[in-house]
Amino acid sequence: MSIPLPLFTPRAIGFARTPFKETAQVPKGPGTKHDANGLLEILPEFEAGLTHIEGFSHLFVLWVFDHSEGFELLGAPPGEETPHGVFATRSPFRPNPIALTVVELLRRDGASLHVHGVDMLDGTPILDIKPYMSSIPVETLRRGWLEDAERRRASSGS
Amino acid sequence: MSIPLPLFTPRAIGFARTPFKETAQVPKGPGTKHDANGLLEILPEFEAGLTHIEGFSHLFVLWVFDHSEGFELLGAPPGEETPHGVFATRSPFRPNPIALTVVELLRRDGASLHVHGVDMLDGTPILDIKPYMSSIPVETLRRGWLEDAERRRASSGS
Repeated sequence: MSIPLPLFTPRAIGFARTPFKETAQVPKGPGTKHDANGLLEILPEFEAGLTHIEGFSHLFVLWVFDHSEGFELLGAPPGEETPHGVFATRSPFRPNPIALTVVELLRRDGASLHVHGVDMLDGTPILDIKPYMSSIPVETLRRGWLEDAERRRASSGS
Repeated sequence: MSIPLPLFTPRAIGFARTPFKETAQVPKGPGTKHDANGLLEILPEFEAGLTHIEGFSHLFVLWVFDHSEGFELLGAPPGEETPHGVFATRSPFRPNPIALTVVELLRRDGASLHVHGVDMLDGTPILDIKPYMSSIPVETLRRGWLEDAERRRASSGS
């Protein structure tokens, strides 16, 4: 058997500045609102890649779970008792430790993006930013175990 | 200056089966609908990670632009004359060649996910799958140059 070539070598295009110094400070679990503001500081050599990004109200941010080691194919998310597959959750313990967060772009200041809705730790390496171009209409979404969890929370009045 | 440690080593969790054998066959440009069905074939060793994924109607698929070499910070998307920054477009020539596609999950068949809305080439390595948990309401979205392009197309009757 031949050893497969590496797919690519990930590099940081910048780093996030957020209010969260440790994992325990990041709001988690069903119904969580991500209301924190933060800064995406893009490295000077990539600044030209931000051209016209200010026209978009929302962005996808791909970043690295750089505090997670290894992966768990099955695990119970915060507030859940039933384990779910890693590809059905936002668990940080993934075969590729890539996270995805949708943020609102408040303003651009040179190579820095002021954003709303961060949920990554301060200093997190950013891999990519993409414009949020379209939404799946909420009424067509089915959201599996998350919907069940929200229903349980609502009926327990918590 | 020290050489930074690699962030992580990307690995394929599976491969996409799609009708597109070459880049020219993938529909592109403003207003494009992605109506093709495809299969996400997850490797057997990661199958447990799909547990309960069938509860979700839509998924984020992260995959590798494995036919793109190098990156371009500024480029004009298909149908555009004005160059935009790579982080404001879906260009495949990105510092990290990671793509993001939202697909509809039609059904799961063991380690294979039948999905609607693929836009990657046949054989594309998949990095991650995440549940699509919430939508930004369409009416709150601003979509920059894409909106302008759609308006131009509408008024030219094309």
